Amino acid sequence: MVSEFDLIARYFTRPLRANSPTSLGIGDDCALLTPSPGMQLAISCDMLVEGRHFFPGADAARLGHKSLAVNLSDLGAMGAKPVAFTLALSLPQVQPDWLAAFSEGLFSLADEHACELIGGDTTKGPLNICITVFGEVPAALALRRDAAKAGDDIWVSGTLGDARLALAACNKELVLDSAEFTAASLRLDQPAPRVALGNALRGIAHAAIDVSDGLIGDLGHILKRSGVGAVLNVDALPVGTALSKQTQDLRRRFALAGGDDYELCFIAPAARRMDVEAAAQKSCTQVTRVGSITGQTGMKLVDAAGQPLELSVSSFDHFAAS
Amino acid sequence: MVSEFDLIARYFTRPLRANSPTSLGIGDDCALLTPSPGMQLAISCDMLVEGRHFFPGADAARLGHKSLAVNLSDLGAMGAKPVAFTLALSLPQVQPDWLAAFSEGLFSLADEHACELIGGDTTKGPLNICITVFGEVPAALALRRDAAKAGDDIWVSGTLGDARLALAACNKELVLDSAEFTAASLRLDQPAPRVALGNALRGIAHAAIDVSDGLIGDLGHILKRSGVGAVLNVDALPVGTALSKQTQDLRRRFALAGGDDYELCFIAPAARRMDVEAAAQKSCTQVTRVGSITGQTGMKLVDAAGQPLELSVSSFDHFAAS
Repeated sequence: MVSEFDLIARYFTRPLRANSPTSLGIGDDCALLTPSPGMQLAISCDMLVEGRHFFPGADAARLGHKSLAVNLSDLGAMGAKPVAFTLALSLPQVQPDWLAAFSEGLFSLADEHACELIGGDTTKGPLNICITVFGEVPAALALRRDAAKAGDDIWVSGTLGDARLALAACNKELVLDSAEFTAASLRLDQPAPRVALGNALRGIAHAAIDVSDGLIGDLGHILKRSGVGAVLNVDALPVGTALSKQTQDLRRRFALAGGDDYELCFIAPAARRMDVEAAAQKSCTQVTRVGSITGQTGMKLVDAAGQPLELSVSSFDHFAAS
Repeated sequence: MVSEFDLIARYFTRPLRANSPTSLGIGDDCALLTPSPGMQLAISCDMLVEGRHFFPGADAARLGHKSLAVNLSDLGAMGAKPVAFTLALSLPQVQPDWLAAFSEGLFSLADEHACELIGGDTTKGPLNICITVFGEVPAALALRRDAAKAGDDIWVSGTLGDARLALAACNKELVLDSAEFTAASLRLDQPAPRVALGNALRGIAHAAIDVSDGLIGDLGHILKRSGVGAVLNVDALPVGTALSKQTQDLRRRFALAGGDDYELCFIAPAARRMDVEAAAQKSCTQVTRVGSITGQTGMKLVDAAGQPLELSVSSFDHFAAS
């Protein structure tokens, strides 16, 4: 019988990196982290549950990637640089193949961002993955949700709606050709967190959020916390090739409220457009200007011609959706 | 329909405390924590699963308490002062009564330790509670597992085996009178984390661990990490009134390997016995000297007369136990 401690040791313990800010990692009551002077610690936590956030039997390597990616996405949205993370894992049984693949997917993305696994917990139970991630951001430079100002531009990174498109294909709501399905599935299963862009936007953007529940809902959080409104040009929303071939209605709905995008929606002064473009170039990330912040509260959706749109879409909600 | 966001807002959002090191709490992509200069951050993470760590239908307030207590216990074992925590919660359904009781139990203990909830996640799924806790400890004063030295004393706090006794009564393995059952159940359901003792032992103890899987297993971690052995006087192990009335065999087994004790096992130089007693008094915590560290590896169990004991007990293991 493989013991819990053997399990942890075999798949998740690695030596700490050289120059690691962590002086003690897995194997003690706590990990010890030495924060850099002048930095604030940005902390985020996401829990992924089988059957809700991923399909039963989901590919373990992709799941390892995604579990960390959704957390790194939060650091990106804060303008923070990843440092470390903890992993709590509830597993129905010990499957070496699954653990090997999961940890490979996890560590591959972690290494890309120099983000170290410093502690955690494993237990038996329904499959559940809970990661808490730690990043650093210079004091007062964090991209919060409450600092959008009237007159600011609204931007989004990458393309929206691809993950929802993949889900629709999986659910047989529509048919994609093989190449399109592969591309969309990658966006659903292995999102690339926009950490580099978020870091490059420090001191430029006023506010940011990562788009995980759909743009309309997530932008709504910024508007509410900042006490402002927005005009959003729905037809300016960036979509990928496959989604651009779908009907106008579906394209709009998926881009506005698809969920699982893990792109950044950020708010920057109109006077900083060139700086935003430079940050995008520096981080090799596409950005698109999609609207503007208004002093009057509420979100006004308009089409390419500036005409008001009445769309009944709402953001994803884990309980309401059930 | 109650939305996820309403849920979080209603039960888990509170204003940040005055003088909080947290400049941004729940409601943004990340929480922002400002570490104190010269301090290391101690981080621990525990996941509690229904049917494994607690009975289905367990009292919600006690569960709220215990979920945080097991994490604070890790901070205590490190000599760290609690600062903040994140909470990820998977719930089968939205039950306002349950949430009210759970959050009350949680916040009651959190307030006692000035430990702030700064972020987290809620989702629908099998009941699962994952808390990550953050504490501060002056650099180089953390009580690690790898610093026990031959000749050191082995100490434990409080009494051992009470939680296991309560579990035995619940499982009808034995019968306790009502007062005894109530007292033992409190130890099982609402453990008091030994944070004050752990903090008072900074600079005195060489090493410490919290006893969660049973003393024999947890002391074993210290021995392994420190490359030393131990002689443990099994009859010196402190037990409560109810357990002291049980058979010698049961008393020894529950004290050695009961699990869920959340006491500290700590290692201190023999020359610091008076300082240990002073730390115990300062933190109003009973401590008992139960053995000593040896240069020869392995753990030798002896009785009150110093005679070797052959006991077949092993520590709790989440997977092996299944």
